[in-house]
Amino acid sequence: MTISARRDRLRHRLAAAELDAILVTDLVNVRYLSGFTGSNAALLVRVDQDTPVLATDGRYVTQAAAQAPDAELVIERAVGAHLAARAAADGVRRLGFESHVVTVDGFGLLERAVGDAGGVEFVRAAGMVERLREVKDAGEVAILRLACEAADAALHDLVNRGGLRPGRTEKQVGRELESLMLDHGADGVSFETIVAAGPNSAIPHHRPTDAVLTDGDFVKIDFGALVAGYHSDMTRTFVLGHAAQWQRDLYALVASSQAAGRNALAAGAALRDVDAASRQVIADAGFAENFGHGLGHGVGLQIHEAPGISASAVGTLLAGAAVTVEPGVYLPGRGGVRIEDTLVVGSESAPTPELLTRFPKELAVIT
Amino acid sequence: MTISARRDRLRHRLAAAELDAILVTDLVNVRYLSGFTGSNAALLVRVDQDTPVLATDGRYVTQAAAQAPDAELVIERAVGAHLAARAAADGVRRLGFESHVVTVDGFGLLERAVGDAGGVEFVRAAGMVERLREVKDAGEVAILRLACEAADAALHDLVNRGGLRPGRTEKQVGRELESLMLDHGADGVSFETIVAAGPNSAIPHHRPTDAVLTDGDFVKIDFGALVAGYHSDMTRTFVLGHAAQWQRDLYALVASSQAAGRNALAAGAALRDVDAASRQVIADAGFAENFGHGLGHGVGLQIHEAPGISASAVGTLLAGAAVTVEPGVYLPGRGGVRIEDTLVVGSESAPTPELLTRFPKELAVIT
Repeated sequence: MTISARRDRLRHRLAAAELDAILVTDLVNVRYLSGFTGSNAALLVRVDQDTPVLATDGRYVTQAAAQAPDAELVIERAVGAHLAARAAADGVRRLGFESHVVTVDGFGLLERAVGDAGGVEFVRAAGMVERLREVKDAGEVAILRLACEAADAALHDLVNRGGLRPGRTEKQVGRELESLMLDHGADGVSFETIVAAGPNSAIPHHRPTDAVLTDGDFVKIDFGALVAGYHSDMTRTFVLGHAAQWQRDLYALVASSQAAGRNALAAGAALRDVDAASRQVIADAGFAENFGHGLGHGVGLQIHEAPGISASAVGTLLAGAAVTVEPGVYLPGRGGVRIEDTLVVGSESAPTPELLTRFPKELAVIT
Repeated sequence: MTISARRDRLRHRLAAAELDAILVTDLVNVRYLSGFTGSNAALLVRVDQDTPVLATDGRYVTQAAAQAPDAELVIERAVGAHLAARAAADGVRRLGFESHVVTVDGFGLLERAVGDAGGVEFVRAAGMVERLREVKDAGEVAILRLACEAADAALHDLVNRGGLRPGRTEKQVGRELESLMLDHGADGVSFETIVAAGPNSAIPHHRPTDAVLTDGDFVKIDFGALVAGYHSDMTRTFVLGHAAQWQRDLYALVASSQAAGRNALAAGAALRDVDAASRQVIADAGFAENFGHGLGHGVGLQIHEAPGISASAVGTLLAGAAVTVEPGVYLPGRGGVRIEDTLVVGSESAPTPELLTRFPKELAVIT
């Protein structure tokens, strides 16, 4: 699917909402709908026109023309206000705007740009583009595969070269893993790598410290590679030296919960049911209180995007959505296990989700 | 100066604006005024009360108590709405809010939280905290010094170990420099390091590529270290092997312009005059068109913050402001030079600015 097909889908949404156009000001959404990656931009998409209008400033003349060749390009520093005025001049009456992104002051500028004469009605269109982004097209899935492959390869390298061994610090492990992702083609990291050893593994989002890896520790690693703007996300938990029985039991429990979550991924499934399928396994074992976060989230141009998969989520999974499944059980003062994959939800005709993060999930005892 | 002294300064501003309180929702501003670094927070500062109210969610109970011991802590996911309701309940009538940060939808939630009965008037207070943040207190300057020292030491290491040599790629140099900053105590990098060799040095904000460094190249390096939340920012330009006369001339011109900019840094100076002092040197040499960006910007908890120093800037420099001075001349297809320091503006009694980035600025020909 090309970028213009994304705008076609958006125009159907505009028509359904009886909007003449939408003013897109979220930069990630502008990128998604135009290909342009600059730091100052807005995009006007009209329901009855193929060609969008892309506004950016003088720094980006060359870049915008190269990245968004099928857009009409306008060079103007006040990008949002300019396109609002343009919409009014073009006869747009009902103009959607991203009310979850535009600030109160920014909205004042839009209203002023349109003026009294315009007759433009601003209509809240929060999340309209984010909902489109839930479903990844073939090009997006291809890039997500590359990002997940870079992360897989880096973790294999780290383990194979003995990077996970007693005496190293969490920070050293994290830096080496991040460096290896770059070696394997990542443009950067998806987020600051989590390396949590021993009792620190019981902290869901631990920042790496100078804590030293020790024999018998759980080592929880949550990390991702960034490729062409797309984020991978994976967590694996290892044991150093020798695994105690409680560690084997805890790991087996989380692995079983994670498999249940993956198996529940299906187009049309209620998001909260997917969460429940995984959570129930942990609750049945008596650890409901030790799994204090949602099961997963969408990934793509942002590391966290729609849909959220949690007990309070509303809505259903869509075919082609890229999501994480990441249950965890955390025992304060002792340690914790989280196992996380990134997958693409299947369709009715091909219901099996595609697993993008392929590093093995059996308990690996590193000796 | 302690964090409570920052809130004292804010309360004076509130009183001057006839506000009873301000609802701070920008996370950097919350950190500045409370010490709390979590990802979901809001702060209510009342004109007549020492103790602010800090709202965050259940993930941060321990962290918030540790980082913001002098705040009243409220655990509540909808942080802004909760504090708006709290302000109303406490009898606040005129409540400042960060209209440059709060979204249209977010403002709707604030209004709903207060309800009709509250009698709270929301008053735009855009930039009020950012203006306070322009002037760094002693603790902030101490951390900025550490950040700039880490960057200085990393660049010295890079040069001393022969990291700048023909045959290496821009990406390799960038990665090594970033790694060296971490070795010298940085928590991370201030921004993605710019390494621009040969003709690429003529691109003001070039991203490192696989382009190979070659004898006779300009190599422009713009980078910074992040320490305890504070950002350093420095640019140096080198020549590899042998400097041609045009390179020596261009370098001397930018160095002279940069010195003029530094010499113009004085408490009370108009921002546009500081820009002009540096820009005039370049314009007099006939290169006005080749210096297409502002002279500098504030640095602190953000890599770009108030004040901006440019031809269109309004306002004056304040004693104790931390700013960059970074003129550049860019010759498309040939190469460019930028020289950038981070400095702290002096006071009337001690007018000399403090230079934080101390790596030498003489033209270094790397052989």
